[in-house]
Formats: sequence, C-alpha cells, structure tokens
Amino acid sequence: MANVLVVHGGGPTAVINASLYGVIAEAAKHEEIRHVYGAIGGSEGILKERFLNLTSFPEEKLKLLLTTPATAIGSSRYALEAEDYEAMRVVFQKHDIRYVLLNGGNGTMDTCGKIHRVCRDFGIHVVGIPKTVDNDIAVTDHTPGYGSAARYLSETVAEVGVDVKSLPIHVCIVEAMGRNAGWITAASALARKKPGDAPHLIYLPERVFHEDEFLEDVKRLYEEKGGVVVVASEGLKGGDGKPIVPPVFQTGRSVYYGDVSAYLAELVIKGLGIKARSEKPGICGRASISLQSPVDRDEAVLAGREALRAALRGEGGKMVGFVREDMPDHTYKISVSMVPIDEVMLYEKPVPEAYINDRGNDVTEDFVRWCRPLTGAVIPEYIDFQELYWEAAKKE
Amino acid sequence: MANVLVVHGGGPTAVINASLYGVIAEAAKHEEIRHVYGAIGGSEGILKERFLNLTSFPEEKLKLLLTTPATAIGSSRYALEAEDYEAMRVVFQKHDIRYVLLNGGNGTMDTCGKIHRVCRDFGIHVVGIPKTVDNDIAVTDHTPGYGSAARYLSETVAEVGVDVKSLPIHVCIVEAMGRNAGWITAASALARKKPGDAPHLIYLPERVFHEDEFLEDVKRLYEEKGGVVVVASEGLKGGDGKPIVPPVFQTGRSVYYGDVSAYLAELVIKGLGIKARSEKPGICGRASISLQSPVDRDEAVLAGREALRAALRGEGGKMVGFVREDMPDHTYKISVSMVPIDEVMLYEKPVPEAYINDRGNDVTEDFVRWCRPLTGAVIPEYIDFQELYWEAAKKE
Repeated sequence: MANVLVVHGGGPTAVINASLYGVIAEAAKHEEIRHVYGAIGGSEGILKERFLNLTSFPEEKLKLLLTTPATAIGSSRYALEAEDYEAMRVVFQKHDIRYVLLNGGNGTMDTCGKIHRVCRDFGIHVVGIPKTVDNDIAVTDHTPGYGSAARYLSETVAEVGVDVKSLPIHVCIVEAMGRNAGWITAASALARKKPGDAPHLIYLPERVFHEDEFLEDVKRLYEEKGGVVVVASEGLKGGDGKPIVPPVFQTGRSVYYGDVSAYLAELVIKGLGIKARSEKPGICGRASISLQSPVDRDEAVLAGREALRAALRGEGGKMVGFVREDMPDHTYKISVSMVPIDEVMLYEKPVPEAYINDRGNDVTEDFVRWCRPLTGAVIPEYIDFQELYWEAAKKE
Repeated sequence: MANVLVVHGGGPTAVINASLYGVIAEAAKHEEIRHVYGAIGGSEGILKERFLNLTSFPEEKLKLLLTTPATAIGSSRYALEAEDYEAMRVVFQKHDIRYVLLNGGNGTMDTCGKIHRVCRDFGIHVVGIPKTVDNDIAVTDHTPGYGSAARYLSETVAEVGVDVKSLPIHVCIVEAMGRNAGWITAASALARKKPGDAPHLIYLPERVFHEDEFLEDVKRLYEEKGGVVVVASEGLKGGDGKPIVPPVFQTGRSVYYGDVSAYLAELVIKGLGIKARSEKPGICGRASISLQSPVDRDEAVLAGREALRAALRGEGGKMVGFVREDMPDHTYKISVSMVPIDEVMLYEKPVPEAYINDRGNDVTEDFVRWCRPLTGAVIPEYIDFQELYWEAAKKE
C-alpha cells in the first residue's frame, strides 16, 4: 500500500477540481492505494508537508469538486530552487508517497519534469495532468480548462451581441484572456448562429495588430450595422513585437499593462468619433461554473483518472495528452496518449496560421469546426423581432 | 376591438423581453384586444410606424422572449422633439392603438408622461413598465432587471472570490455598473457565505471615495489574506464631486471616462507595490441569461401583465410599481401599485444611507436582507479543502 499526492500549479480553471475528483475516484478502484493526499497551496505545500487526506471525505463532499471553481486545494506560483527537488523526494519517501500527480500548465510541466528526474530512481512515479484556460500546452489536441473558457466567452459574446444589436449605437470591445496565444479569443467565433452575427471582428495575438486596418474595419461595420462587437486578445502586439498598450508600471520582474479593450475603445472614440465601450470579464470568465463545459469537465475527470492509471503502470515523466480521433462521420472522439514531459515543457502552442483569416481580423471555419465540440453546448436560441420586421418589410 | 403597442426605451436588461411576454400573454385573455404591436427600435419606431404584430407568432416563438437577452423589438435613445408627441398621437389613432405601454427607466418614464399628456383626451391610455439594471427608479421597491443584474454580480464575485483565494497573490478589483446609484455594486455582498468571504471591500458612488482609506484597507486585508477582492462602482467620485477617473475624451455631450477598476488597480500597484488586476464584466452582466434571476423574470412578466390590465381599466400616466409586503414571517411578497408618472420621472433613487456602513467600504445586513429575495438564487456550495486543512491544523 502506498499514497498518491496531487499538486496544483499556476492559475485556476473551471475544471481543475474535476481532475482532482478523477484521481480520487480512480484511486478508490485500486487496492494498492491507501490515501490520496492534496498538497495545500501548490508546490510550496510539498516542501512544508501540508498534506490533506482527501480520501477521508464522504462522496457527497467530493462530488462538490465537479462544480467548485478554481482550486479546492490551492495553488501557487512559488519559484522553486534547485535544492527543493531533492527535498521533495525526501518528503515523498517520508509519507510513503509513490505516485505524484502535478496538475498545471507549461510552468508546472517544467516542474513535473524536474521532480521526475530526482524521483525516478526511487520508485516514485511523477505524472502531469494538463490544465490551462489558454490552451497553449504543446502536443495535446487541447487542454482541460480551455473548453469551459471557450464556452464562457462564446456564450457571453452571443449575449453581448444581442444587447448591442438591440440598441445599436456603439462599438463594444470585449477583451479575452490569453496573452501569447489566442485560443480563447478565437472561441468567440462560436457565438455566431449565422453570418453577420457578433462578433464582427476578432483579433488574436498571433498576428501583428494594425491600428489603421482596425479603424477601417470598425468604421465600415458601424456604418452598416450601428452596433459592432469586437473581441480582442489581452496580448495584442504591434509591428515592433511590443504590446499595443504601453506598460503602465514596472515592479521587479512584473510589468503591468493597461487594458487592450479600454485602449481600443479610446482609439475608436478619438479616431472615429464613435461611441465605444470596453468589457473585460477577465477571471470572471475562467471561474464561471454556470458556463462550465460538460465535455471539458468530463475530460478533466478522465485526465485525472488516466494520470493515476499511468503512474500505477509505472510510468513517469509523462503528461496525459488528448489525441483527436479521425472519425469517418466527423463525430467528436478523443483518445488518451502519454506524452513525454520533455516534449511539452515550457513550449507555448500558438493558434496555427490555418485558423486565422487572411486579413487577421477573424478565424476560419476550420477553427470553428475544431473548437465547437469542446464547449459541449450550443448557443441558446433567441428571438429577434427586429430582424423579423426588416425581413417582412423587405418582402413588401 | 383595439390594439396595444409596446415600446422599449434605453439600455437592455435580462428580463425586459419577459415583460413583453407578460403583455402578450395578458392580451390573449381579453377579447377587446385585436393585436399587440411591438414598436421596432424604440420611440423612433412609433414615428416611423414600424410596427410588428406580435400576436401573429406561435406560442413556442413567444416563449423564447423569456430567455432572450436584451430587447427583441429593439430600443433607442432617440431624443424626441416637442412636436413628436403630437405626431405620435396621430399615429396611434391611425393604427387604432388605444393602449400604449412604454418599458424603460427614468428617461423613458419622462417620455411616458409626455405622451400621456397629449393622448389622455383621446381615449388612449399610456402606462409605464419599469425597467433598469441600475434599480434607480423612484417610488417602486425595486425594478425588473435589477434582480438579474444583482444575481449575476453576486454569483460572479463568489466565483472570483474562490479563484483569488485559491491562488492568493493579488488584489482583484471588479467594476460594477451603475454610475450614479450603487444598487448593483451593493448586491455583490450576497456572494458571501460567511464572514471573511469575498468581496472584502465594496465601494458605492453614494459615498465620497477616499483613496488613502482605500489603500489602508487593501494593505491590511492583503497582509491578512494574500488575496483581496474589491467591488467598485463605475461612478466613484472624490470629495470634489468629480469622478475619481479623469475624463479621457469629450465629444459633444458625451464624456468618456477611463475605467474605475483599472484606475484602482493602478493605485494599488503604484501605491502599495502589490500585484493587482481589474475585471469589468460590464454589459456581459446585464445580458446574462444563464444567471437570470427567476424571481426577476416572474416579476417582469407580472409588470407587463399589470400594465396592460391598468390600461384596460382606463388608467393612464402611471407606472407599475412594486410594494414589498410586511410579512409576519419575513417571507418575501410583493404587491403591485400604480404610481403616478410625475412621482417617478427623471428622479434617480440612490442607495439609502442605512444600507451603507460607516466607513463607506461595505453594505449593511439590512441591505443584504432587502436584496437577497430578488436574485431568486443562492450561491452554490463549493468545497474548500484549503480551509479544511487550516482548520484541522489549528486544532492540532
């Protein structure tokens, strides 16, 4: 009998707790596991031996993990030193922890690889569970956390689109998370039920942002529609590779930038004399349970289960990855593969060129097809009497 | 037999369409009504005779009104001229419209009163249906639209609170709508399940904002908790009565201000050297159907029904108002009263002093008791293993 330890790293998602639930549920099936511990407060919790025995809680409590936003055992951005890894190994041995599962993004997978290297010769199996709203982890088709962030943004932008259309007197700029990768921003395209629906313009950080083209496009659309919805990544950059918003303040390693949405709204007001406003749901989006994707949640549970299974098989230094099956009827199906950590560590996966249109102000149908199954939901049907009126009027 | 006309004015809410549904449903019970028309695009739609016969649609289409955000017949902020009112009366007579229902906020109620005055001697009954996310309409206990905006903010702040607590490394400032009245901002207090939960600070525009006190409070809470959630109204003002954020740009009558949330985040970063970020869901909040309040929706339907009933009784120049019943068991119950339009027109109702705490950085329990029934929902239960760990550790 031995113990399992789960550790969370980096920023939360709407389904990271679902992966934790997956680990606990899987552990219950294996007699060789005594306890599943949670490291409280991320990797710092390992060093300080802050372990909570999760298997001691009743099932009805544990089920709350599926719908608890953020991370129920806490997380950290604690910067580890070289000697910390060896110290961790000693802690694992002291607590009879033979299976260590690290749930996180690129930074956490880097940590995962380093812990693996000090542990592999001691019979301790270290496996990564991917997690990020940004979807920027390499090798895997997509990452748990992303589907929910994508659903939140697409459903929210659909609603904002109806709002702006019903009182079409301004340009509305919605800012999306993802500083270096535009996956979340791109997902806003799923808001559309038909051509012409919001969002009308989508700007990803993978492409250089041209202010003149932006204003040209906004002006044309405003004249046509009266109300324009733009979705912009928080990380838009100009031709010089620098953020389009100048830094507001710098403290140590951290640089604080103003908001892209506010910056673009100001551009529209000053440059075109058109009323504009900015919306920046920010972390409201990554924490939303009411718009959690059911597919994302199920896959997060699966990722937790598979990580433990792999560790029990004796694997280590690997991350659970998703491979999309090429189905003859184009239905959505994934299989799980174990990806060597060295292939993912610290490599940010951008949105590929094929998913961005030529002018760089929208995504392609290929992207929409790729993304749609991940949100596990369709935009609800709304009734638009304005549209019905104009359609009837055209016929007369 | 005569016709009913419904007109929407001003900014949308999550339940304005529910009131429209209420009117149509009520009309079906009265044989003296031939059609319910919707004025397409607000009061401008009256002058241009853009009327859509809503009673011609099947029930399953009409039911979509209950869950369609914003306004399905459009709205406007069209500035009416003195001669427009007389012109409207002529249009009403031409289309045999004997009942005119205007759904909107303070500005729309002003219009409602003016239309009433030119119509009352012609057997045309003009009645107001209140609507605003801001809840700043006088005389009525509260206004349809507010309960949903309140639910959105409280549930969102509860989720953001869990997010910030699980990785407590920054101050998070959430901006709430309501430039002159802090009703929505105040509703964020409903996010708390127990003392110490987010939001930790709440700032309403009814009180002068003191930057020094704000930084003092943030510093204290950050040292105690590591993660601090602040909710601030978009309309915060300093001792000089001016917005704390200087105007960015002025064009004609419109002044464009920067975001209060970004401004406060910058204050924290520069003043305290603490990491801070801002979230501004903005109109994402007023358009959300997934967090629509069921109580709010039912009351919006009721307001539509009652407006038509009053008009059919021959009333005019009045607005539907809600009176909260003083129930011996403190359960929530409202009754409807018809409020003379002159008592509501253009008067903005602020949050009363009794609902704000002495330091001006929170609301009182009296406010929470008043507000809670309107959201029609309780914050879902989350599991917090971090807390359970620290509780257990304290006992050891």
